[in-house]
Amino acid sequence: MLILGIDPGIARVGFGVVDSSRAGAAMLACGVIETPADMTLSERLSIIYDDVCSLIDAYKPDALAVEELFFNTNVKTGISVAHGRGVVLLAGQRANVQVYEYTPLQVKQAVVGYGRADKNQVIEMVKRILKLSESPKPDDAADAVAIALCHSRSCASLLFDVDRGNTCSTI
Amino acid sequence: MLILGIDPGIARVGFGVVDSSRAGAAMLACGVIETPADMTLSERLSIIYDDVCSLIDAYKPDALAVEELFFNTNVKTGISVAHGRGVVLLAGQRANVQVYEYTPLQVKQAVVGYGRADKNQVIEMVKRILKLSESPKPDDAADAVAIALCHSRSCASLLFDVDRGNTCSTI
Repeated sequence: MLILGIDPGIARVGFGVVDSSRAGAAMLACGVIETPADMTLSERLSIIYDDVCSLIDAYKPDALAVEELFFNTNVKTGISVAHGRGVVLLAGQRANVQVYEYTPLQVKQAVVGYGRADKNQVIEMVKRILKLSESPKPDDAADAVAIALCHSRSCASLLFDVDRGNTCSTI
Repeated sequence: MLILGIDPGIARVGFGVVDSSRAGAAMLACGVIETPADMTLSERLSIIYDDVCSLIDAYKPDALAVEELFFNTNVKTGISVAHGRGVVLLAGQRANVQVYEYTPLQVKQAVVGYGRADKNQVIEMVKRILKLSESPKPDDAADAVAIALCHSRSCASLLFDVDRGNTCSTI
């Protein structure tokens, strides 16, 4: 199963492509979509939409895993990032890719084993799980890979829970 | 100048099409894009994007006027609405329609004359300005018409300020 993980944003959108099978998970690509600060919000959204569409077109993922927004401190940033997240979800929907969402807590829980792990612990575990010689860079890309891994692990655990009738939740 | 005003949302997106000239303003259409609550967020965003694209295609507006989000009380609602607003801006950008944003305060100021006007005063003034026999319904549609009127009035006032080098601000 090919998973495209997305860490949403406006200035920087992290992405990570993970191939997940019973044998384990492998990272195929990761990086960051950047949009110039001197562009209008509409222009920046258009770049994000185009680039996510291109990623879907290039890798043909089976699932799009997108981090859920959780903002207590900076509402303005949250509102801005949500604009970007909207066009990411639209790109997935229009390409008929199933979209899944995970909270930062779920991602940390799945990758590190507990929800209060810090950023460096997440990045270190991503490196170990994927048997990489170096951590994915920059951090936004590593976060996106972690989100893809979270979906991979969430679906793997469902294999054991299939009798309980669990399914991955779509958004 | 043809203006498409949009009151963004997820469950309900208001729209209003206003034709503005030196002789005055006329309403060509107004209504609401509705998305079913039992659909996924991605599906609802896709409906909003499609419908806004269809409106742009049908009316070929010179400008898209979209209300700016201002949420102090309910961050969750703000985040949700911002997803919808993101795909509205994307639709405008991809159709090469100039996008403008106005705060609720600017809309009230432009339509009623003061920023603390209530919803009913805004709707009543929309009816008077456009010489309508009845107020536009439902409220989300009337709000969208008010946003379009705000842009119309903002641009009209700039005609007098042209020597000062003012331009409408795009987003």
